[in-house]
Amino acid sequence: MNKKIPVGVLAATGTVGQRFVEQLANHPWFEVVVVTGSERTVGRPYGEGANWKLAGRPPENVANLIVQPTEPGLAAQVLFSGLPTPEAKELEPAFAKAGHIVLTNASPYRMDPYVPLLIPEINPNHIGIIPHQREKYGWEGYIVANANCSTTSVVLPMQILHQAVGLDTAVIVTMQAISGAGYPGVASMDILGNIIPYIGGEDAKVESEPRKLCGTFADGEIQMADFVVSAQTNRVPVFDGHLGSVSVKLKQPLSPADAIALFQNWQPPAMCGDLPSMPNPVLIYRPEEDRPQPRLDRDAGNGLAWTVGKVRTCPVNDIRFLALAHNTLRGAASGSILNAELLVTQGFITA
Amino acid sequence: MNKKIPVGVLAATGTVGQRFVEQLANHPWFEVVVVTGSERTVGRPYGEGANWKLAGRPPENVANLIVQPTEPGLAAQVLFSGLPTPEAKELEPAFAKAGHIVLTNASPYRMDPYVPLLIPEINPNHIGIIPHQREKYGWEGYIVANANCSTTSVVLPMQILHQAVGLDTAVIVTMQAISGAGYPGVASMDILGNIIPYIGGEDAKVESEPRKLCGTFADGEIQMADFVVSAQTNRVPVFDGHLGSVSVKLKQPLSPADAIALFQNWQPPAMCGDLPSMPNPVLIYRPEEDRPQPRLDRDAGNGLAWTVGKVRTCPVNDIRFLALAHNTLRGAASGSILNAELLVTQGFITA
Amino acid sequence: MNKKIPVGVLAATGTVGQRFVEQLANHPWFEVVVVTGSERTVGRPYGEGANWKLAGRPPENVANLIVQPTEPGLAAQVLFSGLPTPEAKELEPAFAKAGHIVLTNASPYRMDPYVPLLIPEINPNHIGIIPHQREKYGWEGYIVANANCSTTSVVLPMQILHQAVGLDTAVIVTMQAISGAGYPGVASMDILGNIIPYIGGEDAKVESEPRKLCGTFADGEIQMADFVVSAQTNRVPVFDGHLGSVSVKLKQPLSPADAIALFQNWQPPAMCGDLPSMPNPVLIYRPEEDRPQPRLDRDAGNGLAWTVGKVRTCPVNDIRFLALAHNTLRGAASGSILNAELLVTQGFITA
Amino acid sequence: MNKKIPVGVLAATGTVGQRFVEQLANHPWFEVVVVTGSERTVGRPYGEGANWKLAGRPPENVANLIVQPTEPGLAAQVLFSGLPTPEAKELEPAFAKAGHIVLTNASPYRMDPYVPLLIPEINPNHIGIIPHQREKYGWEGYIVANANCSTTSVVLPMQILHQAVGLDTAVIVTMQAISGAGYPGVASMDILGNIIPYIGGEDAKVESEPRKLCGTFADGEIQMADFVVSAQTNRVPVFDGHLGSVSVKLKQPLSPADAIALFQNWQPPAMCGDLPSMPNPVLIYRPEEDRPQPRLDRDAGNGLAWTVGKVRTCPVNDIRFLALAHNTLRGAASGSILNAELLVTQGFITA
Repeated sequence: MNKKIPVGVLAATGTVGQRFVEQLANHPWFEVVVVTGSERTVGRPYGEGANWKLAGRPPENVANLIVQPTEPGLAAQVLFSGLPTPEAKELEPAFAKAGHIVLTNASPYRMDPYVPLLIPEINPNHIGIIPHQREKYGWEGYIVANANCSTTSVVLPMQILHQAVGLDTAVIVTMQAISGAGYPGVASMDILGNIIPYIGGEDAKVESEPRKLCGTFADGEIQMADFVVSAQTNRVPVFDGHLGSVSVKLKQPLSPADAIALFQNWQPPAMCGDLPSMPNPVLIYRPEEDRPQPRLDRDAGNGLAWTVGKVRTCPVNDIRFLALAHNTLRGAASGSILNAELLVTQGFITA
Repeated sequence: MNKKIPVGVLAATGTVGQRFVEQLANHPWFEVVVVTGSERTVGRPYGEGANWKLAGRPPENVANLIVQPTEPGLAAQVLFSGLPTPEAKELEPAFAKAGHIVLTNASPYRMDPYVPLLIPEINPNHIGIIPHQREKYGWEGYIVANANCSTTSVVLPMQILHQAVGLDTAVIVTMQAISGAGYPGVASMDILGNIIPYIGGEDAKVESEPRKLCGTFADGEIQMADFVVSAQTNRVPVFDGHLGSVSVKLKQPLSPADAIALFQNWQPPAMCGDLPSMPNPVLIYRPEEDRPQPRLDRDAGNGLAWTVGKVRTCPVNDIRFLALAHNTLRGAASGSILNAELLVTQGFITA
Repeated sequence: MNKKIPVGVLAATGTVGQRFVEQLANHPWFEVVVVTGSERTVGRPYGEGANWKLAGRPPENVANLIVQPTEPGLAAQVLFSGLPTPEAKELEPAFAKAGHIVLTNASPYRMDPYVPLLIPEINPNHIGIIPHQREKYGWEGYIVANANCSTTSVVLPMQILHQAVGLDTAVIVTMQAISGAGYPGVASMDILGNIIPYIGGEDAKVESEPRKLCGTFADGEIQMADFVVSAQTNRVPVFDGHLGSVSVKLKQPLSPADAIALFQNWQPPAMCGDLPSMPNPVLIYRPEEDRPQPRLDRDAGNGLAWTVGKVRTCPVNDIRFLALAHNTLRGAASGSILNAELLVTQGFITA
Repeated sequence: MNKKIPVGVLAATGTVGQRFVEQLANHPWFEVVVVTGSERTVGRPYGEGANWKLAGRPPENVANLIVQPTEPGLAAQVLFSGLPTPEAKELEPAFAKAGHIVLTNASPYRMDPYVPLLIPEINPNHIGIIPHQREKYGWEGYIVANANCSTTSVVLPMQILHQAVGLDTAVIVTMQAISGAGYPGVASMDILGNIIPYIGGEDAKVESEPRKLCGTFADGEIQMADFVVSAQTNRVPVFDGHLGSVSVKLKQPLSPADAIALFQNWQPPAMCGDLPSMPNPVLIYRPEEDRPQPRLDRDAGNGLAWTVGKVRTCPVNDIRFLALAHNTLRGAASGSILNAELLVTQGFITA
């Protein structure tokens, strides 16, 4: 690629938006040329308007961009969206209609039957639904969603087991980082030295999204996987990194050793072979009895790798394990960027 | 009771021992007259030898006691034991043999078929095994154990469901406080802003102890309850209070509303009616979607009440709920004191 | 006192307001009969409207009170105010004009020359300004303010030194708890594992308020003390308890031993002898090299005692020490209650 | 440099040792060929013996090195020492005597008049004392020390002011990260939600080391700077990054604007111009009223830059400011590596 593809970031001043800006800073294929923000920040240089909550300072070239209002007609076709739910619901279809390609972190269209809920390593072929989406909704562009960050943290090992022997049920309990709630997000008085055993809407997302992600695409339709999930999501005083404890019942028996072998030998689908951000390995199996841990494992593979550990027999179900992923990287910004890379290699995004 | 019953605290300078000293300070029936400690502290006044980690200062009368070595022949028959596992294993039988009544927080004899694993509100009649214990082992005194603090945090609602309709299986994930590991215990570099998904030996305890606690005593034997438990225990950056997320399969169907009614209407067994430390209510049901929380609920009932919430249908099993108890009060020192109170009212401890 | 004095709490649903409700629950002289709140909560029972952030539940009798709007004419003459700054600025004079006695935690009138900035143990005679206040402003009632919570944490040892030998300068650095910022207050993403070296307006308060508190009342005027303070206030990930590191230059030399003796022998002024909430001792000197600590010392004297430690020679100035007080108890709600108790014993509040 | 200089890491399994291994992983000039450890780890591959507490895994090439005992005769002349104080005191001279060049993080020889206490940006010419050291002690090799991590965090802005107008006194209060205490270091029960206002020996180090660092080297002697420091060091629940609040009296008046200009225009000495690890800029001035903050600023310049902010007039002294540096990078491992780089460019280390 001689010239980088110009991209925009919607709600670039928010928590996810800042991660987009940070992670796209030296991307080999993409270059941020447009950032949008709320009324408060529109018209000001991004470096001034953004209340930068990541380490250091915003990348120089983006810091000087003037924040635009979030309206169709932006100077980049490809848009990474960090929009909050209500704005995403209203604006993302308008962008798609106007010809934009929207890679969204928001939830409203995740379960739309025509929108791919995409994790390249899990269901790259689901992008086959895109032409149907454009036709169905009469859009010149399209929307591709990535999964909720808590779903993301556990879904890869679930998919590996599902593909191998079939998943029947999964009981999931998550311990999630505060950055998942954005800024200002969780009040410190609520979470310092405490646990909040409730995240609005999150249980339902973790109970439904894996069924779509692990579903099959055929005949122009995404068929949900037929397993059942129970999820209890919790907020804990951790900055970044979502940890999930998963107990699964399988359709065929599997020993922990077999499951570990599956995890260790698993290779991502051929379709996502040349994506520059894809970590190697994608899934790290840690044999230690006290891993994964958020602080030690969230940054593996530049925050894009999953770490899986404690694969054991479950006295009640079949197998249990822990899985961890970085919620604002793999589970949000970097995940979307990887989605965009797949869309480039598959011809859905062109320079 | 005209005169208080003299009691001793073994390993009184440790984390659990300090809680014993604190909680016995103004007890209506018991008075601490002996404290024991490690070599470092023996011979010094307790107030100097103990590295007091609780708020304020040790109670005046105990502060002036000279720390004794942990050996039979102490000047109190009733002993509350905060001994670490290896010392408990070795010394507690020696104390029992010498005529002492040992109320222990340690694990070695919890699953001994002749030792009652006692929570008054759950299985007060298990103290019926005591005469068999004395006879079997030829002891003049006896040992009564309380359960592991993580078991304790979830077992009361389990027992209520078990008694009502029969428990089949339980999948439990705990989020546990650092004080459960004693002092110095967990290194701050391991837990600050992090989760340690491993507590040595704890999963096995939570998988076995509830079966004994919810078991039946008949014909001189404690019969284990026949349900199966899967436990994944985790350490989180919380000071006090263990929270458990529990999904259960029942022997008969039960709606969440029915389960809530069971929890709200439950009354402790008549046998434990007059215990001065017993909180009222013993079980607090909170209807809010974000409760129980360690910081807000651990001190309910002076740290002796359970708080239960989020009683919901489980998509995979039948019912799920969260339960919380204070790990060093209900789950350790105060739990043992309550056990001793029951032994008084039932004639097993006499002035 | 046969019958309790009816009192009200303004902004009773806020962080400070909740502390008022909690601390007044079993007060021997006062009874909460009125609570006010924001539009969102007006008309609802307090127990429903308040998003109770303290442990357990609101006291039963207050939980059933219907939240009133914050307007003069409330059914209690004595009002404890947890109003935020702008509302306090506007409404407190209106209440005073209408005959209410306002005990405020807010800052707007603290430095008003006619308003006593009151800490009973420090400057009880400053209440002599009250008649002048009423006359000057034509109010039937009056306002009494308590100091900022960070000022409070360090001012008692400063005053003791000032009275003994005269204070010349003080360089103060504070490490303050998140509860001082109210709810939702500090975002967890800002403070978890971090320090925020800035609290809006706080440095100026700590630099000015001690001069008024340690000033003299004579001839109908409060004269500021003539020392100079430098303050750098910081927010740290601590729930409750403000810790201040203080280095002072004195008008006459004083050895650390002499300073310690002053602290240990100090007695509160005779005027505040019979206040039911006053702790004994008011000032706790801890000789350990690692005290005071927020977690271990904030609750001393029911959260009303100061803990002072590390009294040492300062290589640059004369003496340095650390001081700690509970910011929402001594530094807010309980401090105001103590002020009200003094006003009762001095005849400024009558039943 | 065609071939990398072989280096060793003493106590490579400890907290500082791990940072050495991590930071030397892709160093352009140095290659770790020897690691030493305690008895427990000697003879095992480093990857197994080290209880790796940093993110991810140890670098592959070092992971396979067999841990050696810490004894002279190691296969590298240049040794980075993460030895604890007592071992450092005993062993470092033995290594120097045997011809090794010891770059130490330990305190025993920091104030030795013949050992350079070195920060390249501050006092690079102090390495002139090395020949005198070798002669005085009859060593074939030599010792170079870096400063205590808390000293380091504040000393650069102190030196800049000192060089410009002369420093008279400094009152310093630090808020320090737990990683500074090593592993297991601070118990979580002591620091979670708490402050420990004591770090053994640290106050004295911060009061003495800056005087040596800012001193002059002439006539074969290091002359201490003549200013006086008061230091109160505190441990706070922060993972990495030491923050210091500094109030200084200067020998000539200086406005905050002038001080800021000095900080912004300051350039490191010419002697340390070509060091590959030196960040650019070395000192970052942040104009925001709430910076520096540990989480946001510690990683600036790969953890080697200082961040300075809140430069203000001090009501008591002249100027006050905050300074922050990463304690285990700039204040420990990376600082030593930078020292070694200077020794290479100045001919004191040769390939």
